[in-house]
Amino acid sequence: MATWSKASLIVAAAVVLVGLSSASGAHGGRRGRSFVSSYGEPCKEMRLYLHDIIYDYSNSTSNSTSAAATKPTALSTAVSRSGYFFGEVVVFNDPVTEGKALPPALEETAVRAQGLYLYDKKEAPNAWFAFSIVFNSTGRHGTLNLMGADLMSEKTRDVSVVGGTGDFFMARGVATLRTDEASSDLSYFRLQMDIKLYECYA
Amino acid sequence: MATWSKASLIVAAAVVLVGLSSASGAHGGRRGRSFVSSYGEPCKEMRLYLHDIIYDYSNSTSNSTSAAATKPTALSTAVSRSGYFFGEVVVFNDPVTEGKALPPALEETAVRAQGLYLYDKKEAPNAWFAFSIVFNSTGRHGTLNLMGADLMSEKTRDVSVVGGTGDFFMARGVATLRTDEASSDLSYFRLQMDIKLYECYA
Amino acid sequence: MATWSKASLIVAAAVVLVGLSSASGAHGGRRGRSFVSSYGEPCKEMRLYLHDIIYDYSNSTSNSTSAAATKPTALSTAVSRSGYFFGEVVVFNDPVTEGKALPPALEETAVRAQGLYLYDKKEAPNAWFAFSIVFNSTGRHGTLNLMGADLMSEKTRDVSVVGGTGDFFMARGVATLRTDEASSDLSYFRLQMDIKLYECYA
Repeated sequence: MATWSKASLIVAAAVVLVGLSSASGAHGGRRGRSFVSSYGEPCKEMRLYLHDIIYDYSNSTSNSTSAAATKPTALSTAVSRSGYFFGEVVVFNDPVTEGKALPPALEETAVRAQGLYLYDKKEAPNAWFAFSIVFNSTGRHGTLNLMGADLMSEKTRDVSVVGGTGDFFMARGVATLRTDEASSDLSYFRLQMDIKLYECYA
Repeated sequence: MATWSKASLIVAAAVVLVGLSSASGAHGGRRGRSFVSSYGEPCKEMRLYLHDIIYDYSNSTSNSTSAAATKPTALSTAVSRSGYFFGEVVVFNDPVTEGKALPPALEETAVRAQGLYLYDKKEAPNAWFAFSIVFNSTGRHGTLNLMGADLMSEKTRDVSVVGGTGDFFMARGVATLRTDEASSDLSYFRLQMDIKLYECYA
Repeated sequence: MATWSKASLIVAAAVVLVGLSSASGAHGGRRGRSFVSSYGEPCKEMRLYLHDIIYDYSNSTSNSTSAAATKPTALSTAVSRSGYFFGEVVVFNDPVTEGKALPPALEETAVRAQGLYLYDKKEAPNAWFAFSIVFNSTGRHGTLNLMGADLMSEKTRDVSVVGGTGDFFMARGVATLRTDEASSDLSYFRLQMDIKLYECYA
C-alpha cells in the first residue's frame, strides 16, 4: 500500500523558493539573505573524514574519542560476536578532518562530530547514527545535524542531514557514508562523509 | 509569548516548489528530476506495521528483535512499575510489514525499522522514538528517518519524518502511530504507522 | 573542499512556497490550509524555559524529572570530573514553562520536553540533545522535534527544529539555548529556549 496522490503531482516549472522579506523587521539579523533550493544539483558539497577511537578497546584516556555508554545487553551476551553487541550505544566526540590523516590534537580540531551511534544486529556489524557536525574555524561556524541508518553491509549508505545552524542555517541534504578504514582490533575507524546539501541559505 | 510574525504571513498562490535545474551539471545523477510539495495533500502515503519483540521478556535469541540497552535506573527502581522503567533505552531492528501478520523470517524482511526508543514516565508507559525505516525490496530502496514523542496515553500520536534517502530522497512528512496490538506480558507490540509525506521528489 | 555549486545559485524573487491544492482531494483534512516560509523573518517565535531536575543528585522521586539511563563509562571513571561523565545518557520528561518559575505540579504542565541528552566531553561539560516539545493546552496541541549540539562553553548555542506535528505541522527552524540557571550541586538546571520557526503551516 504505497500510492502517489495524483492531486499532488502538479509540478510547476519554477526554480527555487526564496524568502526575500521586504517588510521592515524587528529581528533584522537575517533580513536580506535569501534561501536557495535546487533539487537537481547540490547547493553545497563537502567531503569530510570522521575519526573514531573507542576507549573500550584502546584503553587510552588521551587518545580515545568515544566510549561505550552501555554494558553488553542480555541479548548480546547470548548471541553477538564480540564488538558487534546488539544494543551497544556509543557516545562520541570525534575529530573531523578534510584529509585522511589523524589530526595531531585529537580533541582540538576545528570540526567535530558529536552524538551517538548504536549497534543493532545480532551477528554482524550494523549501526545507526544521530549526531551533529560542529564547525568552529575561522572560515565556518555552525552545525549540521544528521540522522540515519549506517547499513554496514553496503559499501556506501546514505543518512539524512535534517537541519543546520549558523553558516548552515536551515540546511537539509544527504550524507553518503563509507568506511574508509577500520582497524582489525576495532579500536579505530575512519568514516568518509560526502555531504551534499540541497537546501541552502546564502 | 508565542506570536506570529505578520511580515511572514504573505501567502502566494502557487502550488509547488520545483528544482528543474536547466544548467549543465557536473553531478548529473539527479538532474532532470523534480521536487514536489503539496501541503494540502500528501504526495505519498503508506500504511506499515512495525513488530517489536523484546528479548528481555521473551528470552528468545532467535525470535527477539530488540533489547533493553540499559539497566533499570535508580529512579525507576524506586518508582516505576515493571515494564515502564523511567529511563529504559531500547535498541531495535524490527521487521516492518504491509500486513498485520508477523513475518516468518523475522530478520529478513524487505522493510525494517532500526533505531531506539526510550521510556520517560514514572508510573505509566510513555515513549520517545528516533529511528530509520530501511526499504530494501525490488520495488523500493532507501530510508525514511523519523523522530518524535510516542504519547502512549493518546490513541494515535504523530511523529515527524525528518528526512529520507534513495527513493525517498529529501522526503519530509508526518507518521501517525497507533498501538495495534500489545501482549499482556510486554514481550510483543505491533505499531501501525500511517506515513504521509508532504515533501517528495519525483 | 567546500564549494558552492554555481548552477544552484539561481535565485528567484518570489516570496513563499505554498500548497493550496485546488484539486479535489480524498484526504480533505488539511485541504485549504497553506504553507508559509519566510527566510528573512521567523513565521513563529516562542521563548520557553525547560526545567531539568535529575534524580541522581536530588534522590527525590517526586521532584525529579530526569534520570541517568547509563552508569559511568570506563572512560569517564578514568578521566571525567564528577557530573560530566563522558558517555552519560540522561532521559528526561521535563516541565516547560513560559515564565522562569518552577511550576507547582512538575509532572502536569501543559508543555513538556521529552527525550534524551548526553555528555560527550572528557573534562568539561558539553552535551548533545534530541527531544520533542509536547504542547497540550487549550491553545496549542502538537509537537516540535529538536536535535543538536549543546556546546556548553558557548553562552548561547543553536540546535535545529527538524519537524513538527499538530499545530506545528511540518515546522522547521532553529532554537537558541542558554543556561539560565544551574544549581551548584548539579541537581537542577533551567534552559532558556528561544525558538524561531522559519517554515510554518498556517
